[in-house]
Amino acid sequence: MQAIRWHPPAYDIRVETVPIPEIQDPDDAIVKVKLAALCGSDLHIYRGHGGVDKVHTCGHEFIGEVVSLGSNYGANVQGRPKLYSSLKVGDKVVSPFTVNCGECHVCRLGYTGRCPSGALFGSPALDGGQAQYVRVPKAGGTLFNLSNPDTWPTTLSEQEKQKGLTAIADSSLLMLADILPTGVFAATQALNHPKLQPMLTGRPWPLCFSPEVNPEAQNEPGLTLEDRVLTVAVIGLGPVGICATVSLLDELVTRKLPFRVVAIDLLEKRREKMKAVYDAIDKSGKGNGEFAVLATDEAKDLVNKWTGGIGCTAVLEVVGHPSALTSAYDLVRAFGVVVSVGVHGAPVVPYTGRQLYNKNVSFDFGRCPARAMFPPAFELLVKRQDVFGKVGDPASLVDRVVSFKEAPESYRAFDKGEVGKVIFNPWE
Amino acid sequence: MQAIRWHPPAYDIRVETVPIPEIQDPDDAIVKVKLAALCGSDLHIYRGHGGVDKVHTCGHEFIGEVVSLGSNYGANVQGRPKLYSSLKVGDKVVSPFTVNCGECHVCRLGYTGRCPSGALFGSPALDGGQAQYVRVPKAGGTLFNLSNPDTWPTTLSEQEKQKGLTAIADSSLLMLADILPTGVFAATQALNHPKLQPMLTGRPWPLCFSPEVNPEAQNEPGLTLEDRVLTVAVIGLGPVGICATVSLLDELVTRKLPFRVVAIDLLEKRREKMKAVYDAIDKSGKGNGEFAVLATDEAKDLVNKWTGGIGCTAVLEVVGHPSALTSAYDLVRAFGVVVSVGVHGAPVVPYTGRQLYNKNVSFDFGRCPARAMFPPAFELLVKRQDVFGKVGDPASLVDRVVSFKEAPESYRAFDKGEVGKVIFNPWE
Repeated sequence: MQAIRWHPPAYDIRVETVPIPEIQDPDDAIVKVKLAALCGSDLHIYRGHGGVDKVHTCGHEFIGEVVSLGSNYGANVQGRPKLYSSLKVGDKVVSPFTVNCGECHVCRLGYTGRCPSGALFGSPALDGGQAQYVRVPKAGGTLFNLSNPDTWPTTLSEQEKQKGLTAIADSSLLMLADILPTGVFAATQALNHPKLQPMLTGRPWPLCFSPEVNPEAQNEPGLTLEDRVLTVAVIGLGPVGICATVSLLDELVTRKLPFRVVAIDLLEKRREKMKAVYDAIDKSGKGNGEFAVLATDEAKDLVNKWTGGIGCTAVLEVVGHPSALTSAYDLVRAFGVVVSVGVHGAPVVPYTGRQLYNKNVSFDFGRCPARAMFPPAFELLVKRQDVFGKVGDPASLVDRVVSFKEAPESYRAFDKGEVGKVIFNPWE
Repeated sequence: MQAIRWHPPAYDIRVETVPIPEIQDPDDAIVKVKLAALCGSDLHIYRGHGGVDKVHTCGHEFIGEVVSLGSNYGANVQGRPKLYSSLKVGDKVVSPFTVNCGECHVCRLGYTGRCPSGALFGSPALDGGQAQYVRVPKAGGTLFNLSNPDTWPTTLSEQEKQKGLTAIADSSLLMLADILPTGVFAATQALNHPKLQPMLTGRPWPLCFSPEVNPEAQNEPGLTLEDRVLTVAVIGLGPVGICATVSLLDELVTRKLPFRVVAIDLLEKRREKMKAVYDAIDKSGKGNGEFAVLATDEAKDLVNKWTGGIGCTAVLEVVGHPSALTSAYDLVRAFGVVVSVGVHGAPVVPYTGRQLYNKNVSFDFGRCPARAMFPPAFELLVKRQDVFGKVGDPASLVDRVVSFKEAPESYRAFDKGEVGKVIFNPWE
């Protein structure tokens, strides 16, 4: 089969003929890849920053069809994730960017991104999805079955399930592999953080955690409507940042929360994409909050104007660079929260202990537990798939679909920022 | 009057005669100080690390009696904190370590420790409580009235209110100024953090935030009882660390949560104090969890044994030094939370972005909003006041009560770690 392979030390992408992967373990599935995407985090290895020296097949975002299953799949497998009983050859599946067993302590908690049996697709540990076929270990815990609505979120209506089966473009379903759940993860962490609970409950900290207590009787001041406005900045409008913004807005509007959101990027091209996505959100999805797309300095001015110099309730950092962490600190209010889903490298984080103490800042760092986030991400996609449009539309997060032979040039252009998100069709 | 005064550049404490403070603003109260304590964070200025060069009266922990009120206090003050209507000359009061107005946006949210009109007692901005009298600005928002049960938490029973009025030693009530609310703040932040919700709700992340969804129907694995055990480390067993541990244990036991808690300090003297406090907790307050007091390396071994190498669900960092932050990182599990209430200085925090990304760590830094934490801290004190015993008891957090003339020597000995917490009686 054909596969896109990385060669050390850096910037060396080749399309090569390699053996079709086979079942190695009874929990494995082999997936015939329909589409595979190039992701910003692929660039770490591409540039030689990953400390990697092993040739391997790239890519951790793919969608495809099950062509082979290990011997642990069957009619009624007891005590294991239900996909071991229900997954069938021919099912259309999407995989999160990491393998997870779905049955260990870590997975049971929902922290699937750190499963001890896990591995990142497209790394020296596990060949990736930029190939005609890919082996998925622990597939019964890892995959999401796009063909079987019985395994989908129970909150979807029959009509929505029908839409999920037929109406969503593969290029949009592919967003489930990484960028959409990571965006939902960022928004979810912020909105469930204790620091936001006074705004969400209308009760002062710490009474927001004691619903049985009447704040009035405790001689506590009441919150005004203005006190309850959530001011949120999203830093970085690559595909994940745009997904985080859409997820955040969807949640704020659905829960009828008052808000002001500013989406920030240095690059005009990315800001234009964010604006096009926002324009594609229908009226009911926009609510009555304020929304702006700006470069960093203008965003800081706007947040100061919005909040009288107090700052953002929450900042979503979706860049993965110390400068973005510095901007996040500058933008966040005292007693605010910074959620960082950017993939960070070796530099020490740019904060002194005194800065963090003095501003009472909270941080949530780290990788999305993508498999655990699939249900809300899939629900969001079913609800808002129109937003992202078709490949090539102004709002589409995918710039183009190309064949494997364009892989080396696509990596180069993507690395240079000359193109946005690229999808490979392994069969063209 | 007599006051304990700091002189630049460092290590220069003098007892001086200064004018009795007077009402300067209609919101002021003058408090006759009954007891004032020496706190670990006083040492920052004492040592000359505070960037301070102004002579001032020390101390941010005091308890006393109102002797004078500004003209804004009266029978029925509308639209302001209720203490403006109810506070009377002669009332016994305790103050948080910072002033807060109790009526601005920040205070309405409960984030009183960062009130824009706030100031730290015992700093160049505001003379402190280590004096015979102290001026309390914005006293209607700042003080807690120990004489008036009508202003206390409504969750206290009549019997508990009686106990609160009569049975608690002044040396224990003085803990409300800083160390007890700060301890409660640390435990509250950890237990309300989204990362702990799978353990608390028995539902995987992110379904723990959607009580309306049946995880079983979503094909999610169920959590085992073992998955739900909270493993918590408290680093630093000074008075605040001990209060944090007591607050944590009280909450875990009251809510019938399964737990393993390890309290950590390098100094045997502090570990002995922690053990004595734990011994003083009655049987019903200990629950069925496991509890240990250890030095850092032994604690790491125990956590590894307890969790099979996974680490702590939460770590409370109550030291304020980079080495404690490093230990916290080592101890915490992937998808765990570190709550840092230690007062940190100028060094950069000792983490790389990659470390934080790779472990999905959350952090909550900063100063306790002490006034907002008074209700739960006072409830805890009423419930558990026996634990801390009388001054000089093995479990007492106060080592000794001394007169002002012993102040210079007390600062010296406290700075050298030769004595534990010292209280001053300004009238002896």
